[in-house]
Amino acid sequence: MVKVVGSDIDVARAAKLQSIEKVAEKVGISESQLLRFGPHKAKVRFEFIDEVQSRPDGHLVLVTAISPTPAGEGKTTTTVGLGDGLNRIGEKAIICLREPSLGPCFGMKGGAAGGGYAQVVPMEDLNLHFTGDFHAITSAHNLLSALIDNHIYWGNELDIDTRRVTWRRVLDMNDRALREVVTSLGGAANGFPALAGFDITVASEVMAILCLAKDRKDLEKRLGDMIVAYRRDRSPVYCRDLKADGAMTVLLKDALMPNLVQTLENNPAFVHGGPFANIAHGCNSVMATRTALKLADYVVTEAGFGADLGAEKFFDIKCRKAGLTPSAAVIVATVRALKMNGGVKKEDLGTENVAALEKGCVNLGRHLENVRKFGVPTVVAINHFSKDTPAEIEALKRYVAAQGSEAIVCKHWQDGSEGTQELAQKVVELCAAGSAAFKPLYPEGLGLFEKIETIAREIYRAEGVVADQKIRDQLKQWEQAGYGHLPVCMAKTQYSFTTDPNKRGAPTGFSLPLREVRLSAGAGFVVGICGEIMTMPGLPRVPAAETIRLNEKGDIEGLF
Amino acid sequence: MVKVVGSDIDVARAAKLQSIEKVAEKVGISESQLLRFGPHKAKVRFEFIDEVQSRPDGHLVLVTAISPTPAGEGKTTTTVGLGDGLNRIGEKAIICLREPSLGPCFGMKGGAAGGGYAQVVPMEDLNLHFTGDFHAITSAHNLLSALIDNHIYWGNELDIDTRRVTWRRVLDMNDRALREVVTSLGGAANGFPALAGFDITVASEVMAILCLAKDRKDLEKRLGDMIVAYRRDRSPVYCRDLKADGAMTVLLKDALMPNLVQTLENNPAFVHGGPFANIAHGCNSVMATRTALKLADYVVTEAGFGADLGAEKFFDIKCRKAGLTPSAAVIVATVRALKMNGGVKKEDLGTENVAALEKGCVNLGRHLENVRKFGVPTVVAINHFSKDTPAEIEALKRYVAAQGSEAIVCKHWQDGSEGTQELAQKVVELCAAGSAAFKPLYPEGLGLFEKIETIAREIYRAEGVVADQKIRDQLKQWEQAGYGHLPVCMAKTQYSFTTDPNKRGAPTGFSLPLREVRLSAGAGFVVGICGEIMTMPGLPRVPAAETIRLNEKGDIEGLF
Repeated sequence: MVKVVGSDIDVARAAKLQSIEKVAEKVGISESQLLRFGPHKAKVRFEFIDEVQSRPDGHLVLVTAISPTPAGEGKTTTTVGLGDGLNRIGEKAIICLREPSLGPCFGMKGGAAGGGYAQVVPMEDLNLHFTGDFHAITSAHNLLSALIDNHIYWGNELDIDTRRVTWRRVLDMNDRALREVVTSLGGAANGFPALAGFDITVASEVMAILCLAKDRKDLEKRLGDMIVAYRRDRSPVYCRDLKADGAMTVLLKDALMPNLVQTLENNPAFVHGGPFANIAHGCNSVMATRTALKLADYVVTEAGFGADLGAEKFFDIKCRKAGLTPSAAVIVATVRALKMNGGVKKEDLGTENVAALEKGCVNLGRHLENVRKFGVPTVVAINHFSKDTPAEIEALKRYVAAQGSEAIVCKHWQDGSEGTQELAQKVVELCAAGSAAFKPLYPEGLGLFEKIETIAREIYRAEGVVADQKIRDQLKQWEQAGYGHLPVCMAKTQYSFTTDPNKRGAPTGFSLPLREVRLSAGAGFVVGICGEIMTMPGLPRVPAAETIRLNEKGDIEGLF
Repeated sequence: MVKVVGSDIDVARAAKLQSIEKVAEKVGISESQLLRFGPHKAKVRFEFIDEVQSRPDGHLVLVTAISPTPAGEGKTTTTVGLGDGLNRIGEKAIICLREPSLGPCFGMKGGAAGGGYAQVVPMEDLNLHFTGDFHAITSAHNLLSALIDNHIYWGNELDIDTRRVTWRRVLDMNDRALREVVTSLGGAANGFPALAGFDITVASEVMAILCLAKDRKDLEKRLGDMIVAYRRDRSPVYCRDLKADGAMTVLLKDALMPNLVQTLENNPAFVHGGPFANIAHGCNSVMATRTALKLADYVVTEAGFGADLGAEKFFDIKCRKAGLTPSAAVIVATVRALKMNGGVKKEDLGTENVAALEKGCVNLGRHLENVRKFGVPTVVAINHFSKDTPAEIEALKRYVAAQGSEAIVCKHWQDGSEGTQELAQKVVELCAAGSAAFKPLYPEGLGLFEKIETIAREIYRAEGVVADQKIRDQLKQWEQAGYGHLPVCMAKTQYSFTTDPNKRGAPTGFSLPLREVRLSAGAGFVVGICGEIMTMPGLPRVPAAETIRLNEKGDIEGLF
C-alpha cells in the first residue's frame, strides 16, 4: 500500500478503484445482474436477489460503539477496516453501511464513509447524489403530501380532520426555515391554509420502510399501512386510503435495489438506505444485509449511535423483523472517548491519563453487558489514535479482560486491513465457536409501555419511566387497535444512557421521562421520544457550502 | 417493423433496444466516454465534449408548430420521426429533446417522449427519475434558499430586505398547497417568519441556466449572477454574495452532462434539460445541442409551445446566446388542429370540413411568415391522423404552396421512419441549398421595452404594448444597471397570438398587456409576463397517481 500524506479525500483520490463489475464478480454477481451507475457504482437487480434466496446465510457481525463523544469513535471506519481485515485473512466478507445524507454535507465539513485507509469509495458520489435513492424517497414522500392536500382541496371525501394531518413534507437539506410553515395561503385556488412542516429526508417514514422492506410487495404494503392523518372521530386515515401506495412504490422501485461500491482495498460494500437513528432504527437496508448474507461468509454492518440505541434497535427491530441472527458483535471504543467519559476535557485528550481512562471504562462495561443480553458474543475494538499511550491501552485491555471479553488494538485508519487482522481473526473465532444464541430483549407480546420500561431498565439502567397518563392511554389505544405487537424505537440523546447529554460514564439513580409517543405503522414500530428530537437540522453560521466548489481540474474542493 | 396493437407504452415495451454503448458508437462516442446509467441511458463525459469542439457543426433543424389546441399537434413525435427519417435515408442525424418533468406525471396520464412508432426510450425512465438531473436542480435551488434564510438568521450581514427575497423554493411535484407559504414559524430557533413559496423545478432559474450554460465555468458564473433578493436601497443581492455558486455547481456537475438515449429505431437521442416555455425559453440544453452538432450532420430539435413562443425564443435566446445558426425549420400542423383554429369543436373533428380547415390555415400562415423573418427556410409537416381526408390534405397543401412553402404528409406515428422519408429528403434539400441566413428578430442594443414591442408587433401582430409606467421604469432601471443587452423572454398563453387563449386563428386589432417584468440575471433574459403564469401546477380531482402501480411482473401500470 502506497501511503498518501493528506486528508481522507486525498487518500480516497489516490486509491486505485476497480471496475464495479470486477468487484461484483468477487462475490458472484455477474455483469448482467448489475444496474450500473458509472464505472464504480451499481445496483443489484431483483432477479439476482430472488435467485440467491435459497442459499445459506453467512455470519452477521454487528459493529457498534460506546456512547459517542466529541472525541470520535470511528464506528464506520472500524466496520470498513474489519471487512477489509476479514478479506485479508482469506475470508469472503462484505460490509453493509448506511448512505450518508446530502443536507448535512453543506453544513459542517464532513460526510465521507469511513476515514484514513478504511474508507468506502467513490467518496464524492456517496456524499452527493449517489444513485438517487434519497431523491426517490423525497419524491415519494412529497407525492403523498401533495395527494393529501389535493384530496382535501377537491372535497375531502375521506373526511380528514385538517387539524390532524400528521404527514409532513421532506427535503434532503438543512433548512430550519421549513420546520414549521403555513401552507395553502393566497386564496381558494391554493387550498385550505394549514400548519405544516418539513423534515430532513432521512427522517421520513418512507426511509425507514425502504430499509425494513423485504421486497417490492412488502414495500408497497408497508407504504399503504402508513397513517397520514386522523378523522374527527380519531380513526386513522392510511396512505392506502389516498391510493398513494402504488405510485410511491413505482417511484421507489430502483431505490429498493441495494447499491454496491468498494472499499479502498477493492472489497465489496453495500451502501444502502440511511434512516435516522433516533425516531427510526438507524441501520442500512434489510435488502442489502440479506443479500450480502447470501453472497459472503461474513457480513459486517453497523448501527447508528452507541450500543444503547444502535445495537438495541438493530437487534430488537431490524434483526427481529427481518429474521436475522447475528453471530457476533464488535464494540468500538477509543482511549480518547473513554477518557472523556472519565471526565477529561476535549483539549486535554492528548495527555496520558490512565486514571480517567479507567474511570471512563464503566461506559464501555455497561455497553458490553448490554450487548451480551441479546445472546451475542462480543469483542472490543480499540480504534487506535497516535497519541494513545501503551499504559492507557494496557489499562483498557485489562478492564475488558476483567469483564470476560477481549479488547484488540486496531490500526486500520493508518494501515488499512493490515491493522485489523487480529480483530478479524477474533471475529472468525467467535463465529466459529457458535456460541451465539440471539434473542431480542423483550417478547412481541409484552405491552408497549412495558417494552419501553424493559429497555429503560435493562439497557439504560433507569429506575423507571415517567410518563403522563395521556401517553400511557395512547399506547393502550394502539394496543387495542392491533399495534401492540410492534417493537419500540427509542428516540433519546446518544451521548448518555440518561436523557441528559452531559451525564457520561454509566449513570445510575435516574428515571426516564417519556415525553411523546408516535406510531410508525408502516415502518412497524412505536417511537418513544425522550427529549428534544430535531428532525430538520439548521446550517451553522459559516456553512461548508461557502467553500465547496469545483477546482480547475474539475475536482470537488471543500466537501471534506 | 413488427406492428404492436396497443398504447404508446405497449409499442415502447415491444421495442428492441440496443445497448447504449452501441447507440453511442454510431456517432463516434466510445464506451469510455460514457457515464452509464444502466444499459440504456448514459451521460457523455466533458472530456469527450471538449475533445470534439474543433470539429465543424452539422445542420441544426428546428421543429416547431402552429398554435397548440386540445386536438394535439405532435411536435415531439415529429421531431423523433424526422430524426429517424433522416437516418433512414442514410444521413447521420441526432435528435435533441427536453426531459419531461416528474410532477405532472402523477396528475394527468401522459408524460412520454413522442408517441406511436416515433418515441424515445426507455420511456419509463425518462418520465421518472431518469439520470437525476431534475433532482440535482431541485437540490441546488433549495440549497440557495436555505443559505439565504440561514444568512438572515445569523445576523444578515448582507443587509437583505427580508420583504424582498425574490428567490423561492422548488419541488418537482404538482402541489398547489406550496404556492404560497409562510416559513420560519415556531419561534426564534426557526428564524424570521417570511412569506415564501415553491415553484415546480422546471420553473427554476437554475434549470434555465443549466440549459443555457456552455460549460462548467459558465454554469458557475451564471449561477453566481442570479439575483436572489434586494436591500432596502433596492440594490440587488446576488447568489455569489451568499457564496452559494460553488456548491451549487458541485451539485450540478453531472447534471450538466448531456443524456444519451435512443429512439425506437435505435437512433441516438439527447434528452437533456427542460425549462418552462413561458417564464423560461423552453428548449433542451445548449450542451446537448452543441455536442450533437459536432457528432452528426443533422441535429433535429424542438422548442416548446407554438412558433410564436417556442421558435422565437429558440432563435432570439438560445441560438443568439449559444452562437447557433439553424439551417432549416419544420412547422408541424395537423388537419385537426387547423380545423379547430377554423372554429370546429373538438367533438366534431372527425368529420371532413375543408372550409373550416381553410379558415384555420391563417394560423399556420402567420407562423410560416414569422419563422421566415429569422432567415430560416421552412417546410410544413402535416402530422397525419387516420381520419384526415384527401380533400382536407389537398386543401392544406394548396394553402402552404400558395405561401411559397411546401407541406408534406408524415406518418411516423403509425409507420416510424418510413412515414417521414419525404420530409427528411426535403429537409436535406433545404439545408443543402444553403439559403439559410439566420438573424435574430431584434438587435441586442435595442431597449428592453422596444424588444418587447418588436416581438409583439412582428410576431404576435399586436397593435401595441400596454404597460404601466412602473413597468417601463423598471425596464429602464435594468438598462441602467447593465442588463439592457439581454434578450426578452415572453410569458404568454400558448393558445393564441393574443393574451386571450380563446382567440384562435390569426387575430388582429388587439394590443398586448404587459403585466409584469422579471429579471433572470443568471439565465440572461428579462421575462415579460402577459397574463396569469402558473409556476406550480396542482393535481386534478382524480390524479393519475391513484392508478399508477407495479404489476406482478414488476412493470409500471397507469403512468401512460
